[in-house]
Amino acid sequence: MKRSGIITLLTDFGLIDPYVAMMKGVILSINPDVRIVDISHCIKAGSIKEASGILHETFPFFPEGTIHVAVIDPGVGSSRRQIGIDAGGHLFVGPDNGIFWPVIEDHREAKIISLTENKYFMHPVTRTFHGRDVFAPVASHLSLGEDLSQMGKVIGDPVELSIQIPHIVDGVLYGQVVKVDNFGNLVTNICRQDLDHFLKDAKLHIRIGSLVIKKINDTYSDGNKGEVLALINSSDRLEIAVNLGRASEHMATNPGEIPGTEVRIEKL
Amino acid sequence: MKRSGIITLLTDFGLIDPYVAMMKGVILSINPDVRIVDISHCIKAGSIKEASGILHETFPFFPEGTIHVAVIDPGVGSSRRQIGIDAGGHLFVGPDNGIFWPVIEDHREAKIISLTENKYFMHPVTRTFHGRDVFAPVASHLSLGEDLSQMGKVIGDPVELSIQIPHIVDGVLYGQVVKVDNFGNLVTNICRQDLDHFLKDAKLHIRIGSLVIKKINDTYSDGNKGEVLALINSSDRLEIAVNLGRASEHMATNPGEIPGTEVRIEKL
Amino acid sequence: MKRSGIITLLTDFGLIDPYVAMMKGVILSINPDVRIVDISHCIKAGSIKEASGILHETFPFFPEGTIHVAVIDPGVGSSRRQIGIDAGGHLFVGPDNGIFWPVIEDHREAKIISLTENKYFMHPVTRTFHGRDVFAPVASHLSLGEDLSQMGKVIGDPVELSIQIPHIVDGVLYGQVVKVDNFGNLVTNICRQDLDHFLKDAKLHIRIGSLVIKKINDTYSDGNKGEVLALINSSDRLEIAVNLGRASEHMATNPGEIPGTEVRIEKL
Repeated sequence: MKRSGIITLLTDFGLIDPYVAMMKGVILSINPDVRIVDISHCIKAGSIKEASGILHETFPFFPEGTIHVAVIDPGVGSSRRQIGIDAGGHLFVGPDNGIFWPVIEDHREAKIISLTENKYFMHPVTRTFHGRDVFAPVASHLSLGEDLSQMGKVIGDPVELSIQIPHIVDGVLYGQVVKVDNFGNLVTNICRQDLDHFLKDAKLHIRIGSLVIKKINDTYSDGNKGEVLALINSSDRLEIAVNLGRASEHMATNPGEIPGTEVRIEKL
Repeated sequence: MKRSGIITLLTDFGLIDPYVAMMKGVILSINPDVRIVDISHCIKAGSIKEASGILHETFPFFPEGTIHVAVIDPGVGSSRRQIGIDAGGHLFVGPDNGIFWPVIEDHREAKIISLTENKYFMHPVTRTFHGRDVFAPVASHLSLGEDLSQMGKVIGDPVELSIQIPHIVDGVLYGQVVKVDNFGNLVTNICRQDLDHFLKDAKLHIRIGSLVIKKINDTYSDGNKGEVLALINSSDRLEIAVNLGRASEHMATNPGEIPGTEVRIEKL
Repeated sequence: MKRSGIITLLTDFGLIDPYVAMMKGVILSINPDVRIVDISHCIKAGSIKEASGILHETFPFFPEGTIHVAVIDPGVGSSRRQIGIDAGGHLFVGPDNGIFWPVIEDHREAKIISLTENKYFMHPVTRTFHGRDVFAPVASHLSLGEDLSQMGKVIGDPVELSIQIPHIVDGVLYGQVVKVDNFGNLVTNICRQDLDHFLKDAKLHIRIGSLVIKKINDTYSDGNKGEVLALINSSDRLEIAVNLGRASEHMATNPGEIPGTEVRIEKL
């Protein structure tokens, strides 16, 4: 695979500590010409699920041959494996803890390598910061064209992530809120295809908490200011939004507790 | 216009959601060599006014031929136009909602194009994320040297922004606080020229809330620790500051409610 | 010294105001090819000590010939000097207020220049934003290969920073918490060498607040979930952590007040 010359970074390191800058220093020491793009460093500490969704949604917008480093790594220094993945024309590097599971599920031909060849690491390798000592140098060597297959052994049993998927019970489609975004929109795990397949041409009622929404709009500014509405968002997911407002403030719980809330779609 | 090879980004997308990274992926897929600089992604959601001021203040520090993408876009997917602007040796891309008004006001020769040529967009164009589907690809094509004039039709009626400007009533110069910066400084809409023109060589009293300040200092460390002072800041605006402290904490209201507070300049 | 083509930035400017972007614009106007890496812009306003530690810890991970700009500058516009430093194969640019003291202490051969040659500045030089008007252009000229020695006069009395170092009293090693990181870990000023030298092969008790920790573990996931543990972190410092939790929540004070808390090591 030809390299794009880009490495993306996704971590829960925050914006104060020097951990991200250290990774960038290590990457640029090995490949001074590579371009580094931050996906986010503000993932909730240890939230493998949140990061896995963001990575899965974002990576296809980068050129093929991009290397994606994801370090949500509460198990650093334990016996958890460190892996590199070749899938969908992209490369992925990080801990084997489920963070890459949505990518692997979508690309059953994915080649997964347990990274054991320590000549690609930065030495000494600490027990507490593999982002800097293992994943950054591995990614940088990959960006120079090194072959992932040479960096360890193929494995077939990556750690899986349990992800809630929508399901139909007694004629009702059940899903859930996956996250609240920066605009207070409630992003669900229900895709356009799920809806189309369930509804055919029927009308619907969407119920979430005490809210009932009776149609799918096209964009945020449909409806009046402050009106709660539903739409299919730019990642093809059902989303609950408020025109010029925050849907999250229409829920009875704190924003932090909204993910996981049940969404019910009834066919009329 | 020769391109500088730089695209800047200014949004209200925040630091967790993948929206900014998606835009960067799209930009780099079209022009792998362009350099992307973040102005800010922490603009208050939907705050066109806040972003318009930051953009206006910041763009002149970039080399001519830079492309500035600003996406505060609550009207995405509605009938609001999407525009590109050639002004002051720079190019600007974003929604036609007033965000570029201060730039247009300063450059009456600005050429404004309604972006309608969809061959410069990423397809399918969603109704909810034109930052990714329209503005990012348009900016990237512009960075490759594509001609803005080819991307749509010239318009002469861009959306204006109502901006409070200082005014004199009964011999008093009235202005207001525009924002509270990261250091708690109160930045006003009163420029050095407004003051010079109003005061000539007279002395002044500055009144804001219950504070009275009796002279203009040169820098933050003039005066004692904790002293409230006024100065002309690095963007030539009158600013209320506290040496080694936060002026915002001397006001009776919350920092979020300080913008809009009246500032009165009396000539002695 | 050959330049790496990289400039790093460390400030307390935050993520909303346009100050960082202005500095980047100035840098790229002088050297369009230099690569800019953010270390952090979220240092607590005016916290020279916090920034000095982060810079000292981070810069060695960048290639030699990198230029590090650090702007925590409450004394901007006063008589405080502005300096450039050549130390350890790297260059440093910023105010002479102690921010570079840990670097200077480690490199007694450091050459320190008071930056007085104003042809390397951006004019007019304001009294309130030397990050943009002095340090950014100086760094960019340095990145082009300009000689630091030509930019001013050598000085031998840089401002020092008073830094608490561990000490032994009556057979007890006393240190303190330096910071709480993004994961709630308590990073101390006690190095691996301090501990090794003090303990030889003896066992230890670590006391901090009401906590007692009786051994040094290797990594975060040693011990049970929620267990408080001590380890030597990736920067060779003694750190108090909690497996899958936040050590800071085991202290009686707010996270903001934890730095400075005494840490006692007793030898058994």
